[in-house]
Amino acid sequence: MEIRKPLRGVITAMITPLRDRDQLDHAGLERLIEHLIGGGVHGLFILGTTGEAPGLSYRLRAELIQRTCKQVAERLPVIVGITDTAFVEAVSLAAAARKFGAQAVVASAPYYFPASQVELLEYLEHLAAEVPLPVFLYNAPTNTHHTFQPSTVLRAADIPHVIGLKDSGGNMAYFHTVVELLKGRPDFTLLVGPEELMAEAVLMGAHGGMCGGSNFFPQLYVQLYQAALAKDMEQIRLLHSRVMRISATIYRVGRHASSYLKGLKCAVSLLGISEDFMAEPFRAFGSAERDKVRQHMVDQGLLPGVV
Amino acid sequence: MEIRKPLRGVITAMITPLRDRDQLDHAGLERLIEHLIGGGVHGLFILGTTGEAPGLSYRLRAELIQRTCKQVAERLPVIVGITDTAFVEAVSLAAAARKFGAQAVVASAPYYFPASQVELLEYLEHLAAEVPLPVFLYNAPTNTHHTFQPSTVLRAADIPHVIGLKDSGGNMAYFHTVVELLKGRPDFTLLVGPEELMAEAVLMGAHGGMCGGSNFFPQLYVQLYQAALAKDMEQIRLLHSRVMRISATIYRVGRHASSYLKGLKCAVSLLGISEDFMAEPFRAFGSAERDKVRQHMVDQGLLPGVV
Amino acid sequence: MEIRKPLRGVITAMITPLRDRDQLDHAGLERLIEHLIGGGVHGLFILGTTGEAPGLSYRLRAELIQRTCKQVAERLPVIVGITDTAFVEAVSLAAAARKFGAQAVVASAPYYFPASQVELLEYLEHLAAEVPLPVFLYNAPTNTHHTFQPSTVLRAADIPHVIGLKDSGGNMAYFHTVVELLKGRPDFTLLVGPEELMAEAVLMGAHGGMCGGSNFFPQLYVQLYQAALAKDMEQIRLLHSRVMRISATIYRVGRHASSYLKGLKCAVSLLGISEDFMAEPFRAFGSAERDKVRQHMVDQGLLPGVV
Amino acid sequence: MEIRKPLRGVITAMITPLRDRDQLDHAGLERLIEHLIGGGVHGLFILGTTGEAPGLSYRLRAELIQRTCKQVAERLPVIVGITDTAFVEAVSLAAAARKFGAQAVVASAPYYFPASQVELLEYLEHLAAEVPLPVFLYNAPTNTHHTFQPSTVLRAADIPHVIGLKDSGGNMAYFHTVVELLKGRPDFTLLVGPEELMAEAVLMGAHGGMCGGSNFFPQLYVQLYQAALAKDMEQIRLLHSRVMRISATIYRVGRHASSYLKGLKCAVSLLGISEDFMAEPFRAFGSAERDKVRQHMVDQGLLPGVV
Repeated sequence: MEIRKPLRGVITAMITPLRDRDQLDHAGLERLIEHLIGGGVHGLFILGTTGEAPGLSYRLRAELIQRTCKQVAERLPVIVGITDTAFVEAVSLAAAARKFGAQAVVASAPYYFPASQVELLEYLEHLAAEVPLPVFLYNAPTNTHHTFQPSTVLRAADIPHVIGLKDSGGNMAYFHTVVELLKGRPDFTLLVGPEELMAEAVLMGAHGGMCGGSNFFPQLYVQLYQAALAKDMEQIRLLHSRVMRISATIYRVGRHASSYLKGLKCAVSLLGISEDFMAEPFRAFGSAERDKVRQHMVDQGLLPGVV
Repeated sequence: MEIRKPLRGVITAMITPLRDRDQLDHAGLERLIEHLIGGGVHGLFILGTTGEAPGLSYRLRAELIQRTCKQVAERLPVIVGITDTAFVEAVSLAAAARKFGAQAVVASAPYYFPASQVELLEYLEHLAAEVPLPVFLYNAPTNTHHTFQPSTVLRAADIPHVIGLKDSGGNMAYFHTVVELLKGRPDFTLLVGPEELMAEAVLMGAHGGMCGGSNFFPQLYVQLYQAALAKDMEQIRLLHSRVMRISATIYRVGRHASSYLKGLKCAVSLLGISEDFMAEPFRAFGSAERDKVRQHMVDQGLLPGVV
Repeated sequence: MEIRKPLRGVITAMITPLRDRDQLDHAGLERLIEHLIGGGVHGLFILGTTGEAPGLSYRLRAELIQRTCKQVAERLPVIVGITDTAFVEAVSLAAAARKFGAQAVVASAPYYFPASQVELLEYLEHLAAEVPLPVFLYNAPTNTHHTFQPSTVLRAADIPHVIGLKDSGGNMAYFHTVVELLKGRPDFTLLVGPEELMAEAVLMGAHGGMCGGSNFFPQLYVQLYQAALAKDMEQIRLLHSRVMRISATIYRVGRHASSYLKGLKCAVSLLGISEDFMAEPFRAFGSAERDKVRQHMVDQGLLPGVV
Repeated sequence: MEIRKPLRGVITAMITPLRDRDQLDHAGLERLIEHLIGGGVHGLFILGTTGEAPGLSYRLRAELIQRTCKQVAERLPVIVGITDTAFVEAVSLAAAARKFGAQAVVASAPYYFPASQVELLEYLEHLAAEVPLPVFLYNAPTNTHHTFQPSTVLRAADIPHVIGLKDSGGNMAYFHTVVELLKGRPDFTLLVGPEELMAEAVLMGAHGGMCGGSNFFPQLYVQLYQAALAKDMEQIRLLHSRVMRISATIYRVGRHASSYLKGLKCAVSLLGISEDFMAEPFRAFGSAERDKVRQHMVDQGLLPGVV
């Protein structure tokens, strides 16, 4: 199966169901994938930030790629995060992605070291030359502390294999600048990261979004995407308001910056889909926070209330 | 004249025409105001970041308020930036704004010192109590290094006199969060700062935008606002693309972070409206940069080409 | 009285005793100055960060300059902070400093706007040309969000009137770089800002330090300076440990970033020297925090315990 | 061989000699280790930031540990960086370190994800429990974007196996705070990272420093350490000035933030010790920059001039 160019729609930035520090929740993974396909999403992005990839062993990452591709069985494109500080390990993950049947990879800047735009562009050139699959760039400044400047994206778009950008920076002026620069490249996919910005991004020219929330409520994000495609502003405002409410509640339980990830995994777990074990340095919510997430879900009709 | 609640439309974040470090360009100011009113903007915001307010003497700021109000003569609301590190000086500017006939003031956090949200809220309470005009909050983290958290905005919205928010942070997830929180307050004005985000902000619930570019090309921003109001996506994409082109060219001449301000003042000057002298620590473009701005304007039909 | 070049010793970054938002505590100011002179400090720096200068009206700033100079009566050099976002206001403060008999001024970057090193250097050239007193540069990145790069300091040292640098950045590698660059200029004063770094700075080549803690305990900082001059490491470690204890206790009461300023003013007030009213956006500690500061002072022998 | 507590002296933050992306320069590694032992350093820290660890494959990291331990043959303690975003991989590196005979490991925060102090402390507890060697904490905020707050260091010092801290933050007020907090723990090693701060740190209570520059000029840093131990201020100033000159020249060639690493590897290569191939995203200096580094070394007597 070859990936469409551009790739359109809602791509789930998939959580990684874990049973333990280095053990996948196999049954949970299968249920999650069926939940997402049943919910109508247009692709899966595994081993991204939402998938806690940097916190997982390479063995487990390879296993996740293999099991996901097998379960999906080409019903959807599977896109694999290979972002790594070590070039050799990123290439190795890409080889695994190819071997097990994924359709594309996603690569951000090698974090840890500061690097200039010149260095980042060279890095992307070297990486794409070694990777046997189409490559999406991943602009993720919050976590990598690097930004691919718009001019770097424009140049990188000319590297063979580089087929798109996922922008998680949350800065729509940046995103619009990239959209303008790439007007001559209708095949180059432009996806936006924060789900809170997906609607307006699609209205203004993006091809879709990568949405964490679609792990537990895929229909909402798919419907919002379709409303944006249809330019149905009334429907957009209604659905977008639900998206914002999820962000303001389920993702805001707990005291730490990790509350988004914890809330998300907890919500999926409360639906009975997969366990909410988390990789270090995090751990799943305790019962007090779990109850709060449950109550938010009940309030928003995502879980039935207690009879 | 009382200010409408909410205030809607394109508010020009007006540049301050200067002849020298401490001298207004009087004729330029009059021409600029007529240019803006003729161009259809819905209000003037003077003494903001685009107006170089922090770089101007208090004497000159007072003079600008007086002359602007006189020239406008209530044809439009005049909103005055009073953001200051010193409470007493901010109050004094507000008194001048009232005396000379302005309709509202805009106040950001007192920059320089780090301050907590509790301290910022108290500051706003104290300030609003001393200010004899309606107050817009101004979230301007790039310059003040403070953010009014959404929960702070929600509380500040209950302070008497506080009637709206201008958000210049450029983070649309933040803006949407505020929109959601203030759904019960249809009278509370929500304006977005970066002109590159005005279209989507209005589509998603903002009342308008403060646009620097409207200093030289008011019609473009007014038409974009109207297209957004009308939910005319085709027109929006066309006009938004022109806005992005201005940002990518006229605001990007020169090497420094000040290129937005310099390009803007230079463009107004090239239209023969006012001089482009700048307050310290900046200075107007030299002829090389000025020629580049001119060429960009010619290319975009903002100036006639050389015959 | 002309200022020595280089200026050596402990310069107190003096708090501003206030009775109200726009009223000096006159008697407190007099007592404070006598306390400092009696405590052996080598100069006074008024209207700096510790003096809450950006939060004070210009009227009050001028009054403070006048009263301080009168009370000091040339027993010590008085150095006046003129840092301002507005060039004209900075020059006006410098004129007041000259008129009332101060010996020098201190100028940081005009905060609010981002500015390049080229722009900052030009700013300093223009400013020094208008200022009728010797100028110290003030590197204060935490508050101004600008850094004078070492190469900028080196160039600025050639501007007539520019006689020294106060570095409050807290980065000793930066400070050493400046020390090395200015080895050919033994007349150029190099002072370090954070009192926690004064001892090592003097050991490694600085001429002295500006110490906030010397407002309430001038002897400690003066003795530490003298021990550093004498290279008496045993004495240095003993006194430095007391300095660190003050930082870890009296400056750490309260929840906000302003705890340093609040703790300092509270400590001076507990000694019966001056009131601890604070300029917006802060306010003096309530009784719970005040009791904690008192207890820390008792524990450290700065106040007698209750009998 | 057991590691001394506290560990004292100059520990070389060793570069990783590479022949290619995934190939060690074996002969270079042997020469480098002999050069360092011959130069008198007191320990080797491999796989740190200076060792480009995050950019190396796990296979190569294990090989480096093995070859280094074998070559050193317990003449010096070998300390191994195990910092990783993935807990399982960090533990696996620690197991390799133990197996091949290293004396201790160094662990920083798992970068990529933001984490709170509570989460970091738990992480350290979990990690130390799985690591079969003594652990040094590594405060490296520039690269990890995490800081171990002093109170976290104090608590972590009570975790079994945790024996010291290397602080690379460059903030001496932070370092002094930690020194004060740990006064009751004379066995807990306190090392400072930036070599520009080693002299003053040792004067004020540190046990030593990790110095990158000792890769090419070990004697200088060892002598500076000894002068600091002896409190010989005249000698300290002389040697410290040479250290600062290296920082201002050899580490400042090239345009990017990576100039420190590139200059360091280039200098070692110019001495004929090992190759200067660099891991992605960097590459070795070209001939223009290499000539500049050579000239700086000639000027400073680190290389003979051309006859």
